Amino acid sequence: MNLPEKNTPVFNRLRFVLVETSRSGNIGAVARAMKTMGFSDLVLVNPRFADAREDPEAVAFASGAQDVLDGARIVSDIGQALEGCNFAAAVSARLREFSPPVWTPRSFAGHVHAHGDLRAAIVFGNERFGLPNQIVEQCNVLINIPANPAYSSLNLAQAAQVLAYESRMAAEPDAAPAGPVGFHGDAASLAQIDGMYAHLEQALVAIDFLDADNPKKLMPRLKRLFARTQLETEEVNILRGIANHILKAARR
Amino acid sequence: MNLPEKNTPVFNRLRFVLVETSRSGNIGAVARAMKTMGFSDLVLVNPRFADAREDPEAVAFASGAQDVLDGARIVSDIGQALEGCNFAAAVSARLREFSPPVWTPRSFAGHVHAHGDLRAAIVFGNERFGLPNQIVEQCNVLINIPANPAYSSLNLAQAAQVLAYESRMAAEPDAAPAGPVGFHGDAASLAQIDGMYAHLEQALVAIDFLDADNPKKLMPRLKRLFARTQLETEEVNILRGIANHILKAARR
Repeated sequence: MNLPEKNTPVFNRLRFVLVETSRSGNIGAVARAMKTMGFSDLVLVNPRFADAREDPEAVAFASGAQDVLDGARIVSDIGQALEGCNFAAAVSARLREFSPPVWTPRSFAGHVHAHGDLRAAIVFGNERFGLPNQIVEQCNVLINIPANPAYSSLNLAQAAQVLAYESRMAAEPDAAPAGPVGFHGDAASLAQIDGMYAHLEQALVAIDFLDADNPKKLMPRLKRLFARTQLETEEVNILRGIANHILKAARR
Repeated sequence: MNLPEKNTPVFNRLRFVLVETSRSGNIGAVARAMKTMGFSDLVLVNPRFADAREDPEAVAFASGAQDVLDGARIVSDIGQALEGCNFAAAVSARLREFSPPVWTPRSFAGHVHAHGDLRAAIVFGNERFGLPNQIVEQCNVLINIPANPAYSSLNLAQAAQVLAYESRMAAEPDAAPAGPVGFHGDAASLAQIDGMYAHLEQALVAIDFLDADNPKKLMPRLKRLFARTQLETEEVNILRGIANHILKAARR
């Protein structure tokens, strides 16, 4: 994985990921929202229409951001969409029982700006159904846009505009960066973390702590715990080392 | 002119004014942007289509903000639109030779929130031509949304979303949680956490991952990891459960 240089501006290390978008016009409008704030890395996971990038509605809404729309990559799962990222944020108006910590757009933007070695993704769900739990649980944080409790449903492109805007504002010299979670080493990639979870799960089954046939909420709970920490690569290695030794002990 | 009571919340004293809007869909999208942030006072100055409020595109884009769209007033000049207001801000990407002072959305929002006796209007121009100088000159301030110098043209409804969002953020600072690390359960006590570390250490020694005579930096590293998470009592119990099962497996 190519991590960005320490001083890479946020504009080159923030990706927008749209999952199962129904309306091609929204994809165009997101491209425009991104470009107005200086962003260009757009990935579409299974858009409803495979030719969404060429749809006349998408082109019309993209307006002067045709280059961002043309450059959008289409992939078939969230893993591919997050390739190369070490920090992912799910945008959701809905709070869930087992969710990563909930941040505002402003705290997210401050965090990403302050940590120059993060390569971050903001993940947006379908217009009607939002994001599946399974994707939310893979993310480090959940972004909840402060809104009217009586009607909190922002249009997809409006939500993207707010996130892009806050990310730009954080990068402006005047803005006060939030910088909440401090860490020193290299942030682990999402793929490294997924591998660790699989290894850990195996170990917990081997010592009969986890019943594979009736896992209840153990793994989601552990994921929520670690999602709060922004794991470093060396920490992932330590945790895998522990899993490894547990498995050996169980086999003896 | 009826000025608001001193303590009237900003939601009841901020008006959105759209001048000569071409696309009815944009009017609907602005209504939605407003309602998601708690605003409802919408005035249309000479929209291109007199029946814009009933246009199917407007209705579709308004989504759950049909009430704001229905309640929009249509007037024929800016004077009528600003009736009852004592502070007006023109939104423009273009800076002009003779313009009022230029503010950011954030400084505008903070100012209006802080001055409870202001009844303010945000004035947005036509999608292609923006606002005529004559209207800009009538406004107290010009709001310039920080943007990509290479492409600073926000869609009308996106610009309205940014302004509505900043106005809500200024009024509801509590909406932004003090610390971005959210958790749901009881925070574990330090004694509980210390007990867990001792238990974990014992387990790691039992599976030969940790050499008690030469522990190196393993426990401090693990402590640093967990210290970042604000552990909950139930999570401490889960981790002790894991340690317990590791010890049992090692003794077998």
